Amino acid sequence: MRSFKRSNFFPLKKKYDVNNLLDLLDGKIIDNNIHKNFEINDVSSLTQLRNNSIIFLEKDYNNQKIKSLNIHVITNKLSNKEYYKNITLVDNLNHNYNKLLNDLFNHDDQIGFNDEYNFVNGSHISKFSKIDNSCQIGKNCVISRGVEIGKNCIIKNNVVIKNAIIHNDVVISDNTSIGTTGFGFNFKIRGSKHLNPQVGIVIIDENVHLGANCTIDRGKIDVTLIGKNSMIDNMVHIAHNVILGKNACIAAQTGISGSVLIGDNVTIGGQVGLAGHIIIGDNVVIAAKSGVTKNIKDNSVVAGFPAIDINEWKKNIVINRRNGR
Amino acid sequence: MRSFKRSNFFPLKKKYDVNNLLDLLDGKIIDNNIHKNFEINDVSSLTQLRNNSIIFLEKDYNNQKIKSLNIHVITNKLSNKEYYKNITLVDNLNHNYNKLLNDLFNHDDQIGFNDEYNFVNGSHISKFSKIDNSCQIGKNCVISRGVEIGKNCIIKNNVVIKNAIIHNDVVISDNTSIGTTGFGFNFKIRGSKHLNPQVGIVIIDENVHLGANCTIDRGKIDVTLIGKNSMIDNMVHIAHNVILGKNACIAAQTGISGSVLIGDNVTIGGQVGLAGHIIIGDNVVIAAKSGVTKNIKDNSVVAGFPAIDINEWKKNIVINRRNGR
Amino acid sequence: MRSFKRSNFFPLKKKYDVNNLLDLLDGKIIDNNIHKNFEINDVSSLTQLRNNSIIFLEKDYNNQKIKSLNIHVITNKLSNKEYYKNITLVDNLNHNYNKLLNDLFNHDDQIGFNDEYNFVNGSHISKFSKIDNSCQIGKNCVISRGVEIGKNCIIKNNVVIKNAIIHNDVVISDNTSIGTTGFGFNFKIRGSKHLNPQVGIVIIDENVHLGANCTIDRGKIDVTLIGKNSMIDNMVHIAHNVILGKNACIAAQTGISGSVLIGDNVTIGGQVGLAGHIIIGDNVVIAAKSGVTKNIKDNSVVAGFPAIDINEWKKNIVINRRNGR
Repeated sequence: MRSFKRSNFFPLKKKYDVNNLLDLLDGKIIDNNIHKNFEINDVSSLTQLRNNSIIFLEKDYNNQKIKSLNIHVITNKLSNKEYYKNITLVDNLNHNYNKLLNDLFNHDDQIGFNDEYNFVNGSHISKFSKIDNSCQIGKNCVISRGVEIGKNCIIKNNVVIKNAIIHNDVVISDNTSIGTTGFGFNFKIRGSKHLNPQVGIVIIDENVHLGANCTIDRGKIDVTLIGKNSMIDNMVHIAHNVILGKNACIAAQTGISGSVLIGDNVTIGGQVGLAGHIIIGDNVVIAAKSGVTKNIKDNSVVAGFPAIDINEWKKNIVINRRNGR
Repeated sequence: MRSFKRSNFFPLKKKYDVNNLLDLLDGKIIDNNIHKNFEINDVSSLTQLRNNSIIFLEKDYNNQKIKSLNIHVITNKLSNKEYYKNITLVDNLNHNYNKLLNDLFNHDDQIGFNDEYNFVNGSHISKFSKIDNSCQIGKNCVISRGVEIGKNCIIKNNVVIKNAIIHNDVVISDNTSIGTTGFGFNFKIRGSKHLNPQVGIVIIDENVHLGANCTIDRGKIDVTLIGKNSMIDNMVHIAHNVILGKNACIAAQTGISGSVLIGDNVTIGGQVGLAGHIIIGDNVVIAAKSGVTKNIKDNSVVAGFPAIDINEWKKNIVINRRNGR
Repeated sequence: MRSFKRSNFFPLKKKYDVNNLLDLLDGKIIDNNIHKNFEINDVSSLTQLRNNSIIFLEKDYNNQKIKSLNIHVITNKLSNKEYYKNITLVDNLNHNYNKLLNDLFNHDDQIGFNDEYNFVNGSHISKFSKIDNSCQIGKNCVISRGVEIGKNCIIKNNVVIKNAIIHNDVVISDNTSIGTTGFGFNFKIRGSKHLNPQVGIVIIDENVHLGANCTIDRGKIDVTLIGKNSMIDNMVHIAHNVILGKNACIAAQTGISGSVLIGDNVTIGGQVGLAGHIIIGDNVVIAAKSGVTKNIKDNSVVAGFPAIDINEWKKNIVINRRNGR
């Protein structure tokens, strides 16, 4: 479900081998240990390792799987060079992530990356997209390179779909933007030129309903996933790398920060905010306007900000009001 | 103000009489009492009964008005068959609502419902819409079947208007979506194919200003109504069946849940959320970021979440801070 | 950085001199003192005085700079006629602001103001805009009269840009609306026809990243400014007259009310709301979901609603929970 061919969406600029890549690095190369030269045409994350790729690591791992593949590690912390087949220790990891990814891939935050479109019935459809004939597409849509859309999907009007694979029976409502750029950056060096390249995609599983004026950012390296049968209301924002389980129900104006993992069968009220990198269990219910800052266990019902058990939240409200008299 | 001809927006798929409809029902027909056969070409709600229609009732009513019209009742609770002229008792009301409405009407969440458009000055205008010549329409708009727009309206750019009647002197700003699908579903059976068909419309009365990137969902069976002289800021979401009175002033990023009834002359701050099915009186002021969970009486000023009298809210803040020291 | 030629965006309807303008005033002219006749072709604010302009003042100032220029003052409070070269005392200042501005300038909330566009590669580009050749513009965009876009900008798809000057290396993501109408009105007389004409612009400095489905309203008379190197996530709303410093980082679904002044290097979480007319210092951090109601000093870290020092906020949460047990 989460696999995709990156170059369908982000064409390789040119082919690199390990030595070429090293030449592209900026700043000090503190240490370097190269056992093997190979072609690099992809990027890995710890979640999904890919052969013939580069990976950026902030911590030190003895990861046998990395070692078993053609992966070149770039890191800013290294205790044992023999953990990996190829490793380079640099003093500026974030900058070099940006530099190498921008050098490797075309993406839509770079000048010079142009798609080719056909103008079909009022919408712009990339020549490099695959859309099932049974789909219905409204006016003023843009469907970009690499996008795949399954059977019986309804794409309404003024919808932008980039960097996404969409399964059968999905409805996407007006003015929604899919596959947009994740908000990934270095706090210290700001500005459009320094945002981290986002070269992952969005996968929307079957039978999903997306409301109007929503945004779903693509994954940074892997995917943002919307589980099957999920129903999402208007103006919902889902950030990069979010994994949303099956059967989610999310009311309007809710925002889910980056890398949140959400189980199956969750129900989330309107105007809820979820902090980044937290884990929400199965069958969780989050009341409207909650701000969730921590992991939530399966079957919990939470409310408030910071969100707590809904019964405790209700009790606190009563007590605080009594105190207020 | 709230009447409209449904088939202007949602063309009948074919004509049905009572017997045809019964054949379409899914699941067990528990009981049935048919006094009269008639053509069914519409759907009623308790708010607005329509002749030659079907109505779905979750409770049992002795409603003389229903009895006086050609209305076929489908219900999951029945104490007295003689309350109505025609009645069918089913075991799965929500599913049969979906089934019958999808069988009766074309709507934009169904594959196969195509409008016919003219491309006029950069926007797509349905051949079955009526737009006064005095209106000004920007680029990349979509104005769909049945839509009526009165005099001197300004529709800016990239606006989508479906299933709506718009009176004189209305301004609708860029990237706003009108007449989108209400978020109506069965909690137990999720996914795009199981959303409740929404076959009502949006009515926007005269002299309304709508900001940019807003969404206004159409009514489920009846209307979502924006009262005259209302001013609505950017990114405001108004759900299905909301009735907003005259002279409303609503700041940015506020969301109004389904079936909320709002009186005249209300002022609502930014990022406010209103829970579904509540009633807000005339002249109410709701402070920014409030979460309103209950009915609010005329002339109240409320704040906080859950929203309470603003003076009590302010007092609580002072006391809770003092406790915190 | 904040200067612009108003008529590039809002063409003068006709030329007026002081006497013409007086004839256009509605309601009672209570007092009047005209020392000099001159052509009026612009409007001033106290922030930026312009020669040959009109200014609307709610208070009485002895402003030598006003006196030194060809400025005609319209006010509803006057203690000394000799403060200004030309002054008119009226009984309905807000209404006359609307009347005179609508008479002087064309703007996009008026019927009859049409731009002329070329259709270029899927987008509508005003004949009166200036876009550097190095820019990349997606599909279904609208770029209107007077807009200037610097080098190497990326304007994605379905973006609307009106009344704006955009510097180099700016990225604007899909479905975003720039230069939209500020939410300026008289609480007592509501409706689209009575909104205050907004004849300022948006200036976006270099190297700014704007997310998808954002809205940035133009200034009322002067500018809404986005400082250089700022990074703004999806669905952020920035109201009229906001001045945002350099290097801002603003997460998704945050809303900034009108006339807020924000220093450099601020970091603002998601779903934050800022009340109008407040001042936020340099290096301020505002936690997600905060509601900021007052000025915030340099280097502060705040949270909650109303936002307070984040440590105090955290302490209060612990204590209130303990009270709740």
